[in-house]
Amino acid sequence: MARNIKLTLAYDGTDFAGWQYQTGQRTLQDTLEQTLAKITGQFSRATASGRTDAGVHALAQIVSFETDSSMPAEVLWRALNAELPYDMSALTVEDAPTGFNAQREAKRKRYRYVICDYRVRDVFRRRYAWQLFNRLDVPAMQRSAAVLVGTHDFISFQSSGSERETTERTIYDLTIQRHEPPDDRVVQIEIEASGYLYNMVRNIVGTLVEVGQGRQPDTWVAEVLAACNRRRAGPTAPAQGLCLVSVSY
Amino acid sequence: MARNIKLTLAYDGTDFAGWQYQTGQRTLQDTLEQTLAKITGQFSRATASGRTDAGVHALAQIVSFETDSSMPAEVLWRALNAELPYDMSALTVEDAPTGFNAQREAKRKRYRYVICDYRVRDVFRRRYAWQLFNRLDVPAMQRSAAVLVGTHDFISFQSSGSERETTERTIYDLTIQRHEPPDDRVVQIEIEASGYLYNMVRNIVGTLVEVGQGRQPDTWVAEVLAACNRRRAGPTAPAQGLCLVSVSY
Repeated sequence: MARNIKLTLAYDGTDFAGWQYQTGQRTLQDTLEQTLAKITGQFSRATASGRTDAGVHALAQIVSFETDSSMPAEVLWRALNAELPYDMSALTVEDAPTGFNAQREAKRKRYRYVICDYRVRDVFRRRYAWQLFNRLDVPAMQRSAAVLVGTHDFISFQSSGSERETTERTIYDLTIQRHEPPDDRVVQIEIEASGYLYNMVRNIVGTLVEVGQGRQPDTWVAEVLAACNRRRAGPTAPAQGLCLVSVSY
Repeated sequence: MARNIKLTLAYDGTDFAGWQYQTGQRTLQDTLEQTLAKITGQFSRATASGRTDAGVHALAQIVSFETDSSMPAEVLWRALNAELPYDMSALTVEDAPTGFNAQREAKRKRYRYVICDYRVRDVFRRRYAWQLFNRLDVPAMQRSAAVLVGTHDFISFQSSGSERETTERTIYDLTIQRHEPPDDRVVQIEIEASGYLYNMVRNIVGTLVEVGQGRQPDTWVAEVLAACNRRRAGPTAPAQGLCLVSVSY
């Protein structure tokens, strides 16, 4: 096909069974590919920077696809937003160099994980946050998380089921912040890394929360990292708190 | 009944047909009264500070009810949060003086209306905002709204169908603000008043948006107010952008 397109996509992952095509499931890839086929009259295989899991959201997922359509990017953008369902929207559509592949060429990806830590459920964030009922010790979490920044073997934070060839990754940034009042019942963890093992963000968050809840000392995260053993880490944080924020190329 | 309770309730109004009991509909009043009956074994009539419409949310609705239950307020609070559905939560439960009535004694109520004004739909705010596709002129809206503050006959902003005895109300505060970047695609209108005519906030917002979109000059809101004629105002803004923020007694 003649043309390569780069698409920036926002989605609420709640009602999707994740990015990747699965027979009989409502997935992001399938919904997007069907919408593209309807607009261009031609099937295009859509490739995302990474395959988000069921329930995970994206503020700006990057997707590439090839097409023979001669529709200007602006017209394609408009048609996509007219045809996409209520929980997906196309932020930008642009022509990309031949061979651009949103997955292969991604250099860094940034994820955000949102936690509500108050004794009453936040009814407005139930689709977008992990609800905990005790207040987290954010400074302890910050101290314990510092060892994760840099290049390490993150195998302790990899869930089984989708192993990668190498388990070394680089975390460029890891910030943990409580929002300002009146939103101070929300704690936000952001991680920017070269790439991620399966469930890596959710396993890091689950581990940091053990420290934040006082069940482990703040030296424990360093021990988990050094152990190179998945059984040492905390539980996997639930999907709905996770959001892909940006991708760098 | 022996005891009077004051309850602060948060709810996501999306899946409710409003506050007030209606046969065959899922309403807030009915859901709360059923939950209270389950907990205390006795029917209590729940009175809210005001009856929010279908799709309207509350950060802190105030509700009063009477009960013979001797359950401590803290236990009742815990039981309510265990039994209430996913889209309602009890922020506080406290004993109130005999005769306290959440509706009759409300002195001021504050509402917030949220608008997204960007050319792409915000998939995360679809339940909580009015989506407009052109950027609003917020300074023009602020200039035009100033005349509404104070005591006036607001009949121009009353929808038909639920007339009040008097149409004079006092607006104590009306602020229109665009959020800071990166959230600057969100405009928030807050109104605090002694009381409200039917659909008054949504009619004021619909009128201010006419100015913000440049379809009317910023002197127009003053003309609408002075006309005392509902046909002069702008359209009624949709319910999902509206949220009851607080009630003063």
